[in-house]
Amino acid sequence: MILRAISLPICLAWSCGKTIKWTSRIARQADVPTGAQILPNENGSAPGLYFRANINPRIRSPHLFLLPGPPRELQPMFRELAMPILRSIVQVPHSLERRLYKIAGIGESTVEETIGEKVLVIPGIELGYCARPGEVDVRILGEPDAVARADLVIRGELGLSIFSTSDESLEEVLVKLLTERKETLALAESCTGGLLANRITNVPGASKVFVAGHVVYANEAKINMLGVDKNLIEKHGAVSEPAARAMAEGARARARSAYSLATTGIAGPTGGSEEKPVGTVYIALAFADQETMVKRFFFPSDRETFKQLTAQAAFEMLRRRLIGCRVGAIDLNRPGGSVNRPYDY
Amino acid sequence: MILRAISLPICLAWSCGKTIKWTSRIARQADVPTGAQILPNENGSAPGLYFRANINPRIRSPHLFLLPGPPRELQPMFRELAMPILRSIVQVPHSLERRLYKIAGIGESTVEETIGEKVLVIPGIELGYCARPGEVDVRILGEPDAVARADLVIRGELGLSIFSTSDESLEEVLVKLLTERKETLALAESCTGGLLANRITNVPGASKVFVAGHVVYANEAKINMLGVDKNLIEKHGAVSEPAARAMAEGARARARSAYSLATTGIAGPTGGSEEKPVGTVYIALAFADQETMVKRFFFPSDRETFKQLTAQAAFEMLRRRLIGCRVGAIDLNRPGGSVNRPYDY
Repeated sequence: MILRAISLPICLAWSCGKTIKWTSRIARQADVPTGAQILPNENGSAPGLYFRANINPRIRSPHLFLLPGPPRELQPMFRELAMPILRSIVQVPHSLERRLYKIAGIGESTVEETIGEKVLVIPGIELGYCARPGEVDVRILGEPDAVARADLVIRGELGLSIFSTSDESLEEVLVKLLTERKETLALAESCTGGLLANRITNVPGASKVFVAGHVVYANEAKINMLGVDKNLIEKHGAVSEPAARAMAEGARARARSAYSLATTGIAGPTGGSEEKPVGTVYIALAFADQETMVKRFFFPSDRETFKQLTAQAAFEMLRRRLIGCRVGAIDLNRPGGSVNRPYDY
Repeated sequence: MILRAISLPICLAWSCGKTIKWTSRIARQADVPTGAQILPNENGSAPGLYFRANINPRIRSPHLFLLPGPPRELQPMFRELAMPILRSIVQVPHSLERRLYKIAGIGESTVEETIGEKVLVIPGIELGYCARPGEVDVRILGEPDAVARADLVIRGELGLSIFSTSDESLEEVLVKLLTERKETLALAESCTGGLLANRITNVPGASKVFVAGHVVYANEAKINMLGVDKNLIEKHGAVSEPAARAMAEGARARARSAYSLATTGIAGPTGGSEEKPVGTVYIALAFADQETMVKRFFFPSDRETFKQLTAQAAFEMLRRRLIGCRVGAIDLNRPGGSVNRPYDY
């Protein structure tokens, strides 16, 4: 019986890789085709299945994994059960080492220009990039000596741009840094619409450092909730350096927090002008004893990518401040880039 | 040259399906293996490739697609370029019809119990489910007559629980309904931490209906930003029916909006008690002229799934109110379920 295997192409065609269960019987999930190895599912009902290559000697076939669709079922199963099988198939030498570097604030092409050739001249090193909006992962693989050499190059060239060498998100790093420093954060979001708050509160323990967030979409909300001066908005617009500054300072004062971040920009698809096209955003960081920092960015893209790029840039401003590096000196776009130049993701 | 094909298993092993570009030359993305059909990428640099089955007559091989990893590149390419090829391979009869029903507020097993057998007795109908946290998609496929019969069954049994028959999200439906009614929304989020605001502001045009959101993580924020009575929190706790009610009413009064939603619960992993275990959440909906509605739910799960389930339940409370159906009469958990019974996703 190979019921589940037969349904796979239809699942693909119908749902782009999401789970489809066939209704007639949930019990069908327990059917196991001859020769399949069961991969137990600790986070859902349907187990995974693995068929080794050429399982039927008369038919050539590749190694085949059937895994559950929901990410919270798929990811642990892939990591814990499929990976060891894949490793045994390709027989990766045990001596090989892996390293991961997560980078924010500079784009994939810039990362590649900065480290690519210098790392690849090291014999036996493999180098890979994984780009997401506002973030680049660099992975290296090789013998310990080669990895150590590549590690020196990468740390030397990218330095403070590396926000994690384990698999942490930028918000996890921020919550950890703030917790260590016993400092707190408030947020004032216009164009990011709650994305910053949502990401921070995805981190267990966020309640220790995150006090309050304001999602001030309407101008009235900026005025009433954060005390932004109505005349300031009329004179400069809600998407402006003074508005971003006033939002950050208003949020910080109200929450009595150590830091606050504010975002105001034009997510699109409408609302742009010649002076401030869709993709324009101001990010402000307010903190004690020093003038609030405001930076202008330009992220022309679809609405959700715009929000993600803005969130990454805002979190990165705060991270650099927390690790003691003067944000004003850093070009969060790219080396030599103008403030109006897009990230190159 | 089959450079990109060779790298696929390593990409898989390294990054669970995310893009990895090989640094030595971005130009490598332009290399095309012999016999491959190029699938142009309108949203990124790397094109997709398609190899038809048994492309080399001496080697048996399946149909093979190499597609870019980033969802915003993958999804349009799959839909617009891979799907037509898949359709031509399986030669789906042109007479077949498809329908999609998106359902919130009831779990996959309940949906299946409600419609499964009644739909599958219709000859020639194919039925599939796709479950996400707080949402079930039902898809049917068949000859027009069979689909029409199944449609009657599904609409008859699930009725108001169907929030879309096209591919809209719950927040898109809400923004559309509010825009039609020229009504506005405010949010007061504790345990969802900005997820509701983030989802609503992902919808283009949200600024017409969404006024303001408060992410009130700390008790002080609930008191200072929303005017929740300090004594009320001391007496009942921040996760309580009275606190949810006061948060919703405070947010609505401050934003002068038609509606407001409030969430307060215990996302975990810590913070639970015997009376209010991790997963407990109160959701309040405030609106003009009627008493604020508050419902208690129980969503024991990981932190992010908890937030998603809560967001779906909150949005569904508002949707049912907007379509004129008395929310108090609806069990948002499941038919016959107690308020303390988890969703069965």
